[in-house]
Amino acid sequence: MTSTSSKPGDLTHPENSVRRPAPDPELEREILALARKARAASDTLAEFDTETKNAWLRRVAERLEAARETILAANATDLREAETKGIAASLRKRLAISDGKWRDMIQGLRDVCALPDPVGAVENQRVLPNGLRVGRMRIPIGVIAIIYESRPNVTIDAAALCVKAGNAVILRGGSEAIHANRALGEELRAAACDVGLPEDSIVVIPTAERAAIDVLLKADRYIDLVIPRGGPGLIRKVTETSTIPVIAHAAGVCHVFIDASAEAEMAAQIAVDSKCRQMEVCNALETLLCHRDAAAITLPFVLKALHEEGVEIRGCSETREVFGEAKPASEDDWATEYLAPVLAVKVVEDMDAAIVHLRRYGSMHTEIIVTNDYANAQAWQRRVNSSTVGVNCSTAFADGFRLGLGAEIGISTSKLHAFGPMGLEELTTRKFVLSGDGQLRE
Amino acid sequence: MTSTSSKPGDLTHPENSVRRPAPDPELEREILALARKARAASDTLAEFDTETKNAWLRRVAERLEAARETILAANATDLREAETKGIAASLRKRLAISDGKWRDMIQGLRDVCALPDPVGAVENQRVLPNGLRVGRMRIPIGVIAIIYESRPNVTIDAAALCVKAGNAVILRGGSEAIHANRALGEELRAAACDVGLPEDSIVVIPTAERAAIDVLLKADRYIDLVIPRGGPGLIRKVTETSTIPVIAHAAGVCHVFIDASAEAEMAAQIAVDSKCRQMEVCNALETLLCHRDAAAITLPFVLKALHEEGVEIRGCSETREVFGEAKPASEDDWATEYLAPVLAVKVVEDMDAAIVHLRRYGSMHTEIIVTNDYANAQAWQRRVNSSTVGVNCSTAFADGFRLGLGAEIGISTSKLHAFGPMGLEELTTRKFVLSGDGQLRE
Repeated sequence: MTSTSSKPGDLTHPENSVRRPAPDPELEREILALARKARAASDTLAEFDTETKNAWLRRVAERLEAARETILAANATDLREAETKGIAASLRKRLAISDGKWRDMIQGLRDVCALPDPVGAVENQRVLPNGLRVGRMRIPIGVIAIIYESRPNVTIDAAALCVKAGNAVILRGGSEAIHANRALGEELRAAACDVGLPEDSIVVIPTAERAAIDVLLKADRYIDLVIPRGGPGLIRKVTETSTIPVIAHAAGVCHVFIDASAEAEMAAQIAVDSKCRQMEVCNALETLLCHRDAAAITLPFVLKALHEEGVEIRGCSETREVFGEAKPASEDDWATEYLAPVLAVKVVEDMDAAIVHLRRYGSMHTEIIVTNDYANAQAWQRRVNSSTVGVNCSTAFADGFRLGLGAEIGISTSKLHAFGPMGLEELTTRKFVLSGDGQLRE
Repeated sequence: MTSTSSKPGDLTHPENSVRRPAPDPELEREILALARKARAASDTLAEFDTETKNAWLRRVAERLEAARETILAANATDLREAETKGIAASLRKRLAISDGKWRDMIQGLRDVCALPDPVGAVENQRVLPNGLRVGRMRIPIGVIAIIYESRPNVTIDAAALCVKAGNAVILRGGSEAIHANRALGEELRAAACDVGLPEDSIVVIPTAERAAIDVLLKADRYIDLVIPRGGPGLIRKVTETSTIPVIAHAAGVCHVFIDASAEAEMAAQIAVDSKCRQMEVCNALETLLCHRDAAAITLPFVLKALHEEGVEIRGCSETREVFGEAKPASEDDWATEYLAPVLAVKVVEDMDAAIVHLRRYGSMHTEIIVTNDYANAQAWQRRVNSSTVGVNCSTAFADGFRLGLGAEIGISTSKLHAFGPMGLEELTTRKFVLSGDGQLRE
């Protein structure tokens, strides 16, 4: 968890002349003042029409293009400091704003601009017997705090989605990205001023002090939702500390189950796509389960394809009997999110055993069956209560963009409010709206 | 908060021979073992069809009728102990299972039986360009812990709703109701055995030890949702301690705003119904706001009607000018949930000022405008982001039964997942279900 590596002397908010770490009460006052401002802004922001929010998104894109050199220089400072601190190359790669990431960031703003605004839509409208009309209107959640690591592009992506859904957003990125995040935050806020939105609709926490997170997590008077995005340490800390509702985006120990009736070719393609398309993401395949009746012919065919892609196979004893290159799997392997070219493989008695296995070891993220059996396909979709449950497709579809949500703030592993990929709608809630002509309860 | 008044010697679960308070690790083991059983039961319960869950509801009603004498005797024991402890008469009234409450409890089971089962319904089904079919299927949340006070009928009402929606439920009532709650819990569990549902779908925490709540609130491995129902002390404690998502059912400081164009007769009827129909509930009117232009004629007419119903009026200076019986209101009155025949009354400049007032002092529960102005009615519904927002009707409609949800587990004051009255559907979540024929991400 990189955000714990706070350093003295990092309290460099432009409005704050103190360059040494503030004493706790002062830091607390500063952070609470920022949260209070975000709350006040959220009341105003919630009333703005779609066109003004879209104008803000377009203005942010323009401003980022104009400030590109400044932002990349800030990113370069972060990268230099990261190298000095000896931060791993893989982490530095995530920290860098490459040309591709820059393009995606700008395109992301345009994409969010094109999405329909969920706020104000009325669902489930009906008329009660007494004539009272009742509906449920989508409204912003209010103030959302995003606590994330490394990647500075999250600053833009998360702010775009939160504000489009009418929410004020408090952004707390990792200390290693603080220069870039501050530079990006300035453009987000300046664009708000440009189009007449409250500047405090976007608040970037200006300090790398770890204690700032603790203050935020207790500010339930001002903040409605906390979304932590990062490693298990960060998620655990936020869940344990927060008095604010949390939607966690935690690990994915995703499964593909090859049923007895699976076509070998389709099973191999789905396994390779699920595992190899992108290794380091939460919807990547981590454990392959195989029906005993498919173990002799289909399984070695599938494992050969994976092995040719450079995937290390760690199998149960039956797997190793049919595929010589497999190493032995330990108990730990069944619950491991590798995010790397390693795959755990287990032969199971039948679909029931596969379900028992994934309930015991999985993280209820994404589970796919490859089958040509109608009853099993139906039962899998009905019985497996993970956030994404599929038949004959890649685990890679557990993704807000690919599922047609238009955008994605993350993939929730909490069951409340949103389970699975979260788009714009999941950044809203609903109120009851009543239209009467004098109805009493009687 | 009554559930804090734990007493030694109350650890009287039938399966537990220890009659003295267990040391903490032992209590922890006991409570965690119960939670683990509920988790295991929930996996099975989630797969049961509607007919079996309905059979359980009918069987509970039969068993309760058969065990009526035993249950009322247990309730009498609770009432006797409460009197010995000097618990207030109003609280003892809530504790008593009167004939009326008994009838409501039995009828409630039949009503829940008649409701459609939300589990398994697929919403938002669509076909992606690559032919993959995507839908969102309603599934149970899993294991829900209800932490409540005093009223033993909640044991039946909450269990009925949770289990009908496919959730295992852990019930932790107040220590003062423990004999009745245990007796009711035995029938709930026995009825599960009778119809073939897992017995541990319903777990009644058998101890009055306060520490049991602390153990439950950290058992995020086994419990998916905590719903506290009770006073502000209980809500605060649960929110601060829990590592599990919490949906709070907290205070309602509800407002009626009399606009300039309000009809006096309708305003008076709505104010009286909102305030006097039931004083002690969270959707009762607590602060009346009045447009300055309605202060001279309409306001005294409305206040006279309230005063005749025995309501004490605490007004701002302008209110006292037009209604001599009004006492002066203090700053505290604007934020008070009286739950009693007292009403705070304030004259405001206009609708904007009314909205500023309720955002500052209210609890975002229920706000009604009485108006005949089209633009103001629209603006009120759009701008006020409380959980129930209405035009020309009583605050009493902020109620799951009256809004057509069919039942109510409570009224959420949290914005996440459910905001406002919660019915069966709010006790479920949704997973993504994908049906493909070999789709890869590409």
